[in-house]
Amino acid sequence: MPERFETVSFLSDFGSADEFVGVVKSVIRSIAPHVVVVDLTHGISAYDVRGASLALARAVQYLAPGVVLAVVDPGVGSERRAVAVEVAEVASVFVGPDNGVLASAVALAGGANRAVALTDERFHLPAPGSTFAGRDIFAPAVAHLCNGVDLAELGEPVEPDTLLPGVLPLTRREGGQVVAEVLWVDRYGNVQLNVDPDELVILDDPVMLSFHGEQRSARRAESYSAIAAGAVGLVVDAYGLVSIAANRQSAAGELGLGAGDSVTLAVADGDASGPAATTSPVALRPSRSPS
Amino acid sequence: MPERFETVSFLSDFGSADEFVGVVKSVIRSIAPHVVVVDLTHGISAYDVRGASLALARAVQYLAPGVVLAVVDPGVGSERRAVAVEVAEVASVFVGPDNGVLASAVALAGGANRAVALTDERFHLPAPGSTFAGRDIFAPAVAHLCNGVDLAELGEPVEPDTLLPGVLPLTRREGGQVVAEVLWVDRYGNVQLNVDPDELVILDDPVMLSFHGEQRSARRAESYSAIAAGAVGLVVDAYGLVSIAANRQSAAGELGLGAGDSVTLAVADGDASGPAATTSPVALRPSRSPS
Amino acid sequence: MPERFETVSFLSDFGSADEFVGVVKSVIRSIAPHVVVVDLTHGISAYDVRGASLALARAVQYLAPGVVLAVVDPGVGSERRAVAVEVAEVASVFVGPDNGVLASAVALAGGANRAVALTDERFHLPAPGSTFAGRDIFAPAVAHLCNGVDLAELGEPVEPDTLLPGVLPLTRREGGQVVAEVLWVDRYGNVQLNVDPDELVILDDPVMLSFHGEQRSARRAESYSAIAAGAVGLVVDAYGLVSIAANRQSAAGELGLGAGDSVTLAVADGDASGPAATTSPVALRPSRSPS
Repeated sequence: MPERFETVSFLSDFGSADEFVGVVKSVIRSIAPHVVVVDLTHGISAYDVRGASLALARAVQYLAPGVVLAVVDPGVGSERRAVAVEVAEVASVFVGPDNGVLASAVALAGGANRAVALTDERFHLPAPGSTFAGRDIFAPAVAHLCNGVDLAELGEPVEPDTLLPGVLPLTRREGGQVVAEVLWVDRYGNVQLNVDPDELVILDDPVMLSFHGEQRSARRAESYSAIAAGAVGLVVDAYGLVSIAANRQSAAGELGLGAGDSVTLAVADGDASGPAATTSPVALRPSRSPS
Repeated sequence: MPERFETVSFLSDFGSADEFVGVVKSVIRSIAPHVVVVDLTHGISAYDVRGASLALARAVQYLAPGVVLAVVDPGVGSERRAVAVEVAEVASVFVGPDNGVLASAVALAGGANRAVALTDERFHLPAPGSTFAGRDIFAPAVAHLCNGVDLAELGEPVEPDTLLPGVLPLTRREGGQVVAEVLWVDRYGNVQLNVDPDELVILDDPVMLSFHGEQRSARRAESYSAIAAGAVGLVVDAYGLVSIAANRQSAAGELGLGAGDSVTLAVADGDASGPAATTSPVALRPSRSPS
Repeated sequence: MPERFETVSFLSDFGSADEFVGVVKSVIRSIAPHVVVVDLTHGISAYDVRGASLALARAVQYLAPGVVLAVVDPGVGSERRAVAVEVAEVASVFVGPDNGVLASAVALAGGANRAVALTDERFHLPAPGSTFAGRDIFAPAVAHLCNGVDLAELGEPVEPDTLLPGVLPLTRREGGQVVAEVLWVDRYGNVQLNVDPDELVILDDPVMLSFHGEQRSARRAESYSAIAAGAVGLVVDAYGLVSIAANRQSAAGELGLGAGDSVTLAVADGDASGPAATTSPVALRPSRSPS
């Protein structure tokens, strides 16, 4: 049986204080020594399935072909399924809990082609308790897939339509306003909104931002450096979405914004007391491959 | 001379802010380019030899064959020995300071077969000061071992019996009570006790926990998800030990518990004002191999 | 075209919470699958070009031959140049923004031999915004260099003399005093000064440290363990510089010192009210190779 995959891209909420990440990688290396593991991040907030799902969606088009392992799993040991999902367009398999963490990335990678629940205990590590599925269920499944074991051998088939979908917030247009939501605050305090730049053509410059009962004016800028000191600006970020940013400062800190917060964008003299954004299942728009 | 080891499993208290980990890995790669380094964790608290020793003991049965490097070394540059220890049962060598950090893992891997002090300066990097043995003594020793240099060449032989033992706390039974100690609080706030589930057969459900002069009732649960909201439960964790846990919340934060704290377990209506647990040299019980 | 480099040493201020590091490594692996990336650190404070430059200078003599990627880039997307710099003495190329982050390491590696600006868009990833040059410009450049693409193909030639120099602070001698500056506070709270041990031969033991209007006596010690409990001492560190340290405690925390602070060293009974240190372009002194 030929080796099938050489790369595992690994994301989790395991953090860096404990040895969880290292043990998962040790199990993979013990079973499939030829595999290289690329850590996407393990700094997802504990239990934050939505944050992990978005991080994976931002990254997916850039990943090397192979297996993608995403473990943010507050329901570990319960009835939630552990799954492996083969996608249509990419030579890749996604492995993780069936709690939505994989959904947006799978959609961006062409959608699920086949899926199984990781129920065959021949591919599990024996363990006295069920609290560390990353080590005992997911890592060996990933390693055996890399060794060429077919998806279908790992457990019972799962109908792709039954996989839990991801939920991404849609913007809502209300008159001259765009009611948006914060998707992500990054390490530098940039505030990514669920807003396509095209949605803002209805608004002149500057734009008035309303949030938490406050208002703040923001001008469009080509780069962080082009934003005036002390001001916040609107930048089209590396993912093609509108971000609220500042120059060498944290816009999120300055404005008190976090993931999930509602922000209304309007013309600078408009009425900007907007209600919360609505939520609807939707995929990030497809994007280009890295090379 | 054939290459002997292909994997180095690396644990330290170096943290992530400085370049210490990267420099150690660069030195290994410069001398032994064929080696893959698997980082177990570098988030051990500064100087926490006990915490590092327990993390290594939890991980050791899952490690790929090769060299294990553990650097938590508050005595760096002093008279404490730098050692390499070959174990009996596993094709592995453990390298680190002789301060107890290796002891439990070595015991779990079958005990020390041979050991040396890393005294031969031909295998050291020259350095103006003695504060970074990870870079100047441990990394080159690890790399040369991976290149096939025999343990005995690295320095003076050390009698395995003289290696500093690890110290793991024993539970104590007092009447109907079990006096335990917190071994570990993980990233999610799960509180691992030094308690085997068998020790609790004397106690009905729920169990009364006593600590810091407080009391709290806890029911046994099969998984974190099975614990009622707002409650704490007792779960057999992935290491076969009893953990105090909560459902998507930090039990440690809720109860104010940290590593080393004493917890008494009793029947829910019993007298639970227990004294501190005693300490005794003991190994974690042997466990199974990963694949 | 033969593969040219097998190792990328990677340093940034990307932190560990987001997937930035993982995406850069995924892009490199997608284009140049044979490459091993060694992470030096990604815990540089956001925007801290000076801190990154010093970390790279401390590490450079220990790096495996190959490409060095340093991304601390507050001017991303602006007119600052993205560059690749080939050095004279080492089989290495340094890649990053031309903002000083590479300068000291390049000087220690023998100085710039050739340089280019990464302007050829054939080697960029297409992207909707310009905020993530690590992914879209630096990572593909690094990967193509590893694949054997010549530096000159990546963009317009840059005259090495026009690269932004690094600025390292010089000590200043004033009578019997040495006016120094804190270069670095490490994970353990050791305070590295820009002071060569030879500069202190004029001072008896103990030395009086003056900083922030306070004074503190410090004795020389061979190792951290040799410093008395509760005291601070002066240790020659692993880089050949004088560090203020404590025994299993943070000297920086104890004294309230951080990077960039001024410290005056004098004889214990001398007048130590010194002015701030002067700044001048200078390289860390050359040092030895790792093996």
